[in-house]
Amino acid sequence: MGNLTLSLSRRPGVPYYLQLYRHIVEEIRSGGLASGEKLPSKRALAQHLSVSINTVDTAYQMLATEGYLQAVPKSGFYVCPLPQLQTPPPLPEPEPASPPPEPACRFDCSTGSVDTSVFPFATWARLTKDIMYHEPQLLHHGDAQGDLCLRQALCRYLHQFRGVRCLPEQVLLGAGMEYLLMVLCSLLPEQTLYAVEEPGYRKAWQAIENCGRAVVHLPVDQGGLSIRALEESGAQCAYVTPSHQYPTGAVMPAGRRAELLHWAAAQEGRFLVEDDYDSEFRYSGRPIPALQGADYGGRVIYAGTFSRSIAPSIRIAYLVLPPSLLPVYRQRFSQQSSTVSRFEQHTLWRFIQEGHWERHLNRTRNLYKKRRDRLMQSLRNTPVGPRLQVTGAEAGLHLLLRLENGLAEGEMVARARQQGVALVGLSSCYYDPSLAPPATVLCGYARYTEAELEQVAQALGRAWRLEGPVRPS
Amino acid sequence: MGNLTLSLSRRPGVPYYLQLYRHIVEEIRSGGLASGEKLPSKRALAQHLSVSINTVDTAYQMLATEGYLQAVPKSGFYVCPLPQLQTPPPLPEPEPASPPPEPACRFDCSTGSVDTSVFPFATWARLTKDIMYHEPQLLHHGDAQGDLCLRQALCRYLHQFRGVRCLPEQVLLGAGMEYLLMVLCSLLPEQTLYAVEEPGYRKAWQAIENCGRAVVHLPVDQGGLSIRALEESGAQCAYVTPSHQYPTGAVMPAGRRAELLHWAAAQEGRFLVEDDYDSEFRYSGRPIPALQGADYGGRVIYAGTFSRSIAPSIRIAYLVLPPSLLPVYRQRFSQQSSTVSRFEQHTLWRFIQEGHWERHLNRTRNLYKKRRDRLMQSLRNTPVGPRLQVTGAEAGLHLLLRLENGLAEGEMVARARQQGVALVGLSSCYYDPSLAPPATVLCGYARYTEAELEQVAQALGRAWRLEGPVRPS
Repeated sequence: MGNLTLSLSRRPGVPYYLQLYRHIVEEIRSGGLASGEKLPSKRALAQHLSVSINTVDTAYQMLATEGYLQAVPKSGFYVCPLPQLQTPPPLPEPEPASPPPEPACRFDCSTGSVDTSVFPFATWARLTKDIMYHEPQLLHHGDAQGDLCLRQALCRYLHQFRGVRCLPEQVLLGAGMEYLLMVLCSLLPEQTLYAVEEPGYRKAWQAIENCGRAVVHLPVDQGGLSIRALEESGAQCAYVTPSHQYPTGAVMPAGRRAELLHWAAAQEGRFLVEDDYDSEFRYSGRPIPALQGADYGGRVIYAGTFSRSIAPSIRIAYLVLPPSLLPVYRQRFSQQSSTVSRFEQHTLWRFIQEGHWERHLNRTRNLYKKRRDRLMQSLRNTPVGPRLQVTGAEAGLHLLLRLENGLAEGEMVARARQQGVALVGLSSCYYDPSLAPPATVLCGYARYTEAELEQVAQALGRAWRLEGPVRPS
Repeated sequence: MGNLTLSLSRRPGVPYYLQLYRHIVEEIRSGGLASGEKLPSKRALAQHLSVSINTVDTAYQMLATEGYLQAVPKSGFYVCPLPQLQTPPPLPEPEPASPPPEPACRFDCSTGSVDTSVFPFATWARLTKDIMYHEPQLLHHGDAQGDLCLRQALCRYLHQFRGVRCLPEQVLLGAGMEYLLMVLCSLLPEQTLYAVEEPGYRKAWQAIENCGRAVVHLPVDQGGLSIRALEESGAQCAYVTPSHQYPTGAVMPAGRRAELLHWAAAQEGRFLVEDDYDSEFRYSGRPIPALQGADYGGRVIYAGTFSRSIAPSIRIAYLVLPPSLLPVYRQRFSQQSSTVSRFEQHTLWRFIQEGHWERHLNRTRNLYKKRRDRLMQSLRNTPVGPRLQVTGAEAGLHLLLRLENGLAEGEMVARARQQGVALVGLSSCYYDPSLAPPATVLCGYARYTEAELEQVAQALGRAWRLEGPVRPS
């Protein structure tokens, strides 16, 4: 007979019957209570443990529902046969999560940062509250592709500002670009070879690789992806950033664009994924119209996100699918749930409809342009100014700094960190870092005020002076 | 020379320079402006079109940036060579999106519905607003697995209420179960064969199939998935709902649970996905502890979601990964962005921390239990009551109704719809509908008040009476 003398204790959230239940399960598992054994009557056990009969009854009923006990009418509860479990080994402790983060720097100039202090919280919060109070139906499931109102507003914006030609049926909203790339991979044949840019956007190629797809990394020059390399690669799908190559900032010229569309049209089943990354933040001239608008063959999958134009933590991205991919998309995904919260979808929709987004974009574009100018000017005035080459500054929220005084990239990053500025090296955007040009880092500037950027520039000037103390390498 | 006499019109959002830019692009594309041709000087064209020189300058600069024109110093702008594009065929119109929805029914008794009127909007909205105003840092990217505070709160809840043993490092938040299943598929070897329940949760098996993975559908009896079928299937990973099988409501008894864990432990690389679906809504006895808590071999991937316990449109689901899968997860996903909005993560966290969630769960559990009781009682009192067999009512938000008067499932659904009640047939949960038992439908009840459910029952009673008019089939 198992040990049924247990001491029940008042523990918050663990009522007596649950303690009793767990104890009996342990007794059965350990063999203390054998198969076929009869348990004490409810009354007897209740008395023994000084608890109510209800408490014992609840525990017995749970054990019976789960198959640990069998209730025999007019007799009592008996232990059911249980396949013998091995003695459970202790669960291995998980390895500690990723190495502890490096101590935070005073200035985080990584590329994804935006200035959240200029975000119109009051407006966003008001819209959110308004929607929560007045549209309770949004708690129910919405359209798998995203709610129609937001897809319509997006179509209008993309047409007007990016030259994209599409209908709301072609638009697919999802919780971030990486997710949408996973969806896209599942629409194209499994054996598709994907071409990505080198250097390029690691999260994108990783998302494609995570789907088990083959990826080839093709070189980028000052006009973007090399068409010749693309032709020779045998790829069927190319992921490109023609408006503003990440991370170099290269703008693909019209001729190359036409060649790219030619490449796609030349063979059945070829596609281009146009990631129109940072197209909202172009500082000289108007943004360059999207490739998609010049694609008459239905080969361009247009992709964009609100993570820079609203905020990185607002997880709303979108794909514009060509008509030929819609049937397979609908077949596979129309019964799945959207990955985007409907409250956020509708908040964003109202934010766009009421003109807040355009105002926010214009405001931040002007702000970021001034910050870029200030950073560039301040860098020129530092001791290393004459040895710094700045590129990729025409658009986006970061620029590339190439230092020509003999310091290596790793040295640049380490010394900047010592002076309180976190930067990433250009080689981190390469699949094969050995191909990276020497001594080049990315410097994001959107997050800081002009006065702060002056400090960033001075810190970098101190960090990269050669007469300064050289760290042992 | 191309036609540069265009009429520029005041159009909102399309400034003159953009109209001019587009016109010149069209002229170049159509051959109206030939390669090498020189464009009129800015001053001349500005005069010709009655616009400012700035307008023309902006358009020319854009065209030069994009490679349509080349600026020759001290001479002017020349058309660049452009590879000849084929005459663009018109873009095919996308097919109309999925067939137009059937006219809405007065009562939607599909299974996913909850009563949104009892959702504590005021609290949720207050927390959201509070977070937006006081935690602007949440606009930046957060942890790829989800923010730590929410993962910790979830661990506590899962341990206390579901017997799950895990550390926050093992918890992975994502925008819905389908997304998380896609992530999971990419962690297991590509050739993994997945076993799912028949009948079962279509969205789950579809998500797995969408990843290009092989799926085998195994029969379910009153104790859940057949272990024998699982053994014989050759599957390496089984997706199961042991606490409350979807859609039958079967509870897997302890013996079968132990066998399932045995199956997983018997061979390297086997895994169980335990979808602890609707475990919050159990009406008799305490919820049955999760399989995960009895898994000492690290073979159970525990899965849950807030879509019923908060609302379907709040897209927060979670996986608890066994330690052995963490290294590959981190390698592939730690640099990806979380798919869940951080505002919603923190709103949910505060909602849990401050006890609102538990209160909401208790309130809705009681409410839904009363509704279930009322529906069952009302159905018994209808003319077809004696011919109705009700199962799967012990937990969850729907029950199964089997009618034994000769009407077929399709007939039941169609007649119910005529009387204003939308239902789904059990066969819709089958991969092979021919295996479904006869004349059984799912009836969700959580969304409607007791008075409304009385009407639902009466409508179903009218719909399924045999003496009523029989629709031509």
